[in-house]
Amino acid sequence: MTKQRLYLYDTTLRDGQQSAGVQFSVPEKIEIAKALDGIGIDYIEGGWPGANPTDSDFFEAWPETRATFTAFGMTKRAGRSAANDDVLAGVMNANTPAVCLVGKTHDYHVTTALGITLEENLENIRASVAHMVAQGREALFDAEHFFDGYKANPDYALECCRAAYEAGARWIVLCDTNGGTLPGEIGKIVEAVIAAGIPGDRLGIHCHDDTGNAVAGSLAAIEAGARQIQGTLNGLGERCGNANLITLIPTLLLKEPYASTLDTGIAPENLRDITKLSRKLDDILNRVPLRSAPYVGASAFTHKAGLHASAILKNPDTYEHIDPAVVGNTRLIPMSNQAGQSNLRARLKGMGIEVAKDDPRLARILDLIKEREDQGYAYDGAQASFELLARAELGQLPKFFEVKRYKVTVERRKNRYDKMVSISEAVVVVKVGGKKMLSVSESMDEQGHDRGPVNALSKALSKDLGPYQSLIDDMKLVDFRVRITQGGTEAVTRVIIDSEDDAGQRWSTVGVSPNIVDASFEALLDAMIWKLMRDGAKPA
Amino acid sequence: MTKQRLYLYDTTLRDGQQSAGVQFSVPEKIEIAKALDGIGIDYIEGGWPGANPTDSDFFEAWPETRATFTAFGMTKRAGRSAANDDVLAGVMNANTPAVCLVGKTHDYHVTTALGITLEENLENIRASVAHMVAQGREALFDAEHFFDGYKANPDYALECCRAAYEAGARWIVLCDTNGGTLPGEIGKIVEAVIAAGIPGDRLGIHCHDDTGNAVAGSLAAIEAGARQIQGTLNGLGERCGNANLITLIPTLLLKEPYASTLDTGIAPENLRDITKLSRKLDDILNRVPLRSAPYVGASAFTHKAGLHASAILKNPDTYEHIDPAVVGNTRLIPMSNQAGQSNLRARLKGMGIEVAKDDPRLARILDLIKEREDQGYAYDGAQASFELLARAELGQLPKFFEVKRYKVTVERRKNRYDKMVSISEAVVVVKVGGKKMLSVSESMDEQGHDRGPVNALSKALSKDLGPYQSLIDDMKLVDFRVRITQGGTEAVTRVIIDSEDDAGQRWSTVGVSPNIVDASFEALLDAMIWKLMRDGAKPA
Repeated sequence: MTKQRLYLYDTTLRDGQQSAGVQFSVPEKIEIAKALDGIGIDYIEGGWPGANPTDSDFFEAWPETRATFTAFGMTKRAGRSAANDDVLAGVMNANTPAVCLVGKTHDYHVTTALGITLEENLENIRASVAHMVAQGREALFDAEHFFDGYKANPDYALECCRAAYEAGARWIVLCDTNGGTLPGEIGKIVEAVIAAGIPGDRLGIHCHDDTGNAVAGSLAAIEAGARQIQGTLNGLGERCGNANLITLIPTLLLKEPYASTLDTGIAPENLRDITKLSRKLDDILNRVPLRSAPYVGASAFTHKAGLHASAILKNPDTYEHIDPAVVGNTRLIPMSNQAGQSNLRARLKGMGIEVAKDDPRLARILDLIKEREDQGYAYDGAQASFELLARAELGQLPKFFEVKRYKVTVERRKNRYDKMVSISEAVVVVKVGGKKMLSVSESMDEQGHDRGPVNALSKALSKDLGPYQSLIDDMKLVDFRVRITQGGTEAVTRVIIDSEDDAGQRWSTVGVSPNIVDASFEALLDAMIWKLMRDGAKPA
Repeated sequence: MTKQRLYLYDTTLRDGQQSAGVQFSVPEKIEIAKALDGIGIDYIEGGWPGANPTDSDFFEAWPETRATFTAFGMTKRAGRSAANDDVLAGVMNANTPAVCLVGKTHDYHVTTALGITLEENLENIRASVAHMVAQGREALFDAEHFFDGYKANPDYALECCRAAYEAGARWIVLCDTNGGTLPGEIGKIVEAVIAAGIPGDRLGIHCHDDTGNAVAGSLAAIEAGARQIQGTLNGLGERCGNANLITLIPTLLLKEPYASTLDTGIAPENLRDITKLSRKLDDILNRVPLRSAPYVGASAFTHKAGLHASAILKNPDTYEHIDPAVVGNTRLIPMSNQAGQSNLRARLKGMGIEVAKDDPRLARILDLIKEREDQGYAYDGAQASFELLARAELGQLPKFFEVKRYKVTVERRKNRYDKMVSISEAVVVVKVGGKKMLSVSESMDEQGHDRGPVNALSKALSKDLGPYQSLIDDMKLVDFRVRITQGGTEAVTRVIIDSEDDAGQRWSTVGVSPNIVDASFEALLDAMIWKLMRDGAKPA
């Protein structure tokens, strides 16, 4: 059977930028475009040239891509020709090979929002598409509010699509602009559009997640015959976001009926990069990656339930719908109070530690975990601290250095410009191989702003670790989570730190104390010690 | 047309607790159960009695609810009777009106994971369900891996369900345990089960979000005829989570074909509480609410695109699929002062501050809030800080005292018994009525343990406030929440402090800084100033 081609259209740089709090810079847009191109997306929509200074600047500088670079705009306004519409001219002047223009297809919006006649709107669509085609561009018509329009006046909504189609649009993109249409209805309406004469391989689908169905709605449209999906990385986008391409891509490549009937531009081996692609966007946005994200989340293959975990140990496919390695993710069996000895052995084995089935130290480690969890520790989200605890109990943790004492000061006072400023300063005394080292550091970022006592401590601690210094240098703190929790009878602070090295490996550590600085320091220390151990550093 | 009854089954306290990093305490479980009951959920699954100490303790203390309280467990093991299975006995002994037992329906799992014959498994199901019924309980059979099992061996999977049905199970819950089945397939398989003789009003659906389709899969099963949905608050749950009831409930109550054909236990007016219910769970978990969450997210009705925002001002239904008020959420048009002015006036009035409709200070306050929220402040949960900000702008905030500077030290070192101990010490300089006061405090509780720098600062600041001292004396800090959040382009720390006085009044304040001590101090200061203002203290 020959497969049909399904096209993927990314609008992270345009609709994705409509997310509250998101504003990409030009270099960020370039970085994202290159990453999209690298994985094999077919169309990259870069923004709306002329709509704002960043988008205009970006279209002066868009990178060369294998993907079809696309500018977004709107159909010409009534009362002027396509050639004389300055907004449309701004879009065309970006000189992209493809142009996508949004236009109305819901009669109510034509008369209410635009205040023009239904025929004028049809003419605007026709003339704008013809103009794009005449200029040698691939033309896409973005049918705004198509599903609501179709429900209100199917004939008119179809007429709008037909106007674009007959004027030469390569794609008619059916948009569920306000996100309110459910998948079942999307499927039926797409079928009706195809039955009305617009071939499925000229139809695209653009869903929003306002009912949590953007992915399912996109799949329903594809099953009905549409052959282009529009979406964004990590489901970024206006309100609740767009269809999440990071979720859709593995489903389309791995699941039936799609895998054996449709071809995308994404080579199967590129699927392994999708977890990294998702993280890259979070990095650019400085967002904490969603742990529960399908396929790519840190928890997507985390098996916490006791029953699941023990079955997974026998055979991973008992509780996993796909092999995590296929999407560049990894399996995790967390240690929690529901875990038993067989989980523990498997977990240790995953860390390269073999322990015999009836080794009494297994029970000791479980007891220790339980005791620590009662104090407020949580090892689910702190695998590296768990490993250190287990290795220490098993006598497999080298002694690298010892922190003899530390002192950290936070001071807030007026500076010479009579402005209140803070400064943090940390002194750490470490003993490495019999030699005491005293390091001091204050905490200022490049802009001269104080980043707080934990940052100062981290800097001081990693400043001078003698023989270990080079192994620590590429470590950075990527996330810091604080929770007030119950430790025994008293409220304590639990700090979880995520660290990363230059190779992109991440690890998490935990610290607990009534004193937030202490708790942070404990997690920091674990992070460093784990890295030294992982890198095979010799004991001092 | 008479509507059919659709039942909602919540498993936040059981499957939700399988989320990485989630461990509810008994009081938290009770609080969540009450909230679920309040909104009108039909079944509340409390956990697995006997599986861990917390669940066992909870089943000693579960609250009286209108909802059917349910204990979870597994079918009896082979080689013993239902009455003699100690695991099953542990579940039955919780004495809940309903019991839900998970059992295998996938032949591969029966022979591989359990290592018993297919007939033994059928007998385990039959005998366990009969045992529950004989004990007068409402029996639910949780058909694990049903969809994969059906695809591998439809006859056997159906036989398992039939065994439970014929033994008297009220519900056969079809579980997509590993989350890999897509909505289209779920719909078709549910139809086949009904065609095979198990009525739809005896079928439940239990989906996971591993392909981002848990909500759509649940809806597909309902459309095929199933009449119970299992899910969790905010989609908590194993791996990528369960079907999100917070998303499903508004869709079922507001959208066709569900709204006019199905009745749930949720009264339409209770729908307004759903945003609050979602936030309550996040509060308990100390999680930052997902801004893009359907219906309840802070961005769900935020209109950022210029085209959308201007149309919304003319008529909200141009770009909103539902009225945000119906789900207790609010519309937000960033950059638009018009949007919030009437809300703001109402809020100020609630604090006893009257401002005229066209007072230009309203716009200034809104701008200030927006600017501060961009920096990471959150005023929803910090009413007292909000009031101070508004009063300052309106010229209605007396000047009580000024903090000139502070310094706080945390030191960790060995004590004379060679044990590592911490001590925190704070110095605060305050100017009250032209007089400078210098206070110092260290932070030790009654047991001589360090409680950290924030505690030390709090003590030093409240030690000597001259004429205000007596008003401050009865104030105590009752909760302290820390979140790392986005302030502009950098991660900052947001601290929210809840304070209480002897009369039992509570108020909340917020502080934001990259430095956690600064952020805490800011929130502390606000808490004191608010109390002085509320108590009518005179300016110094």
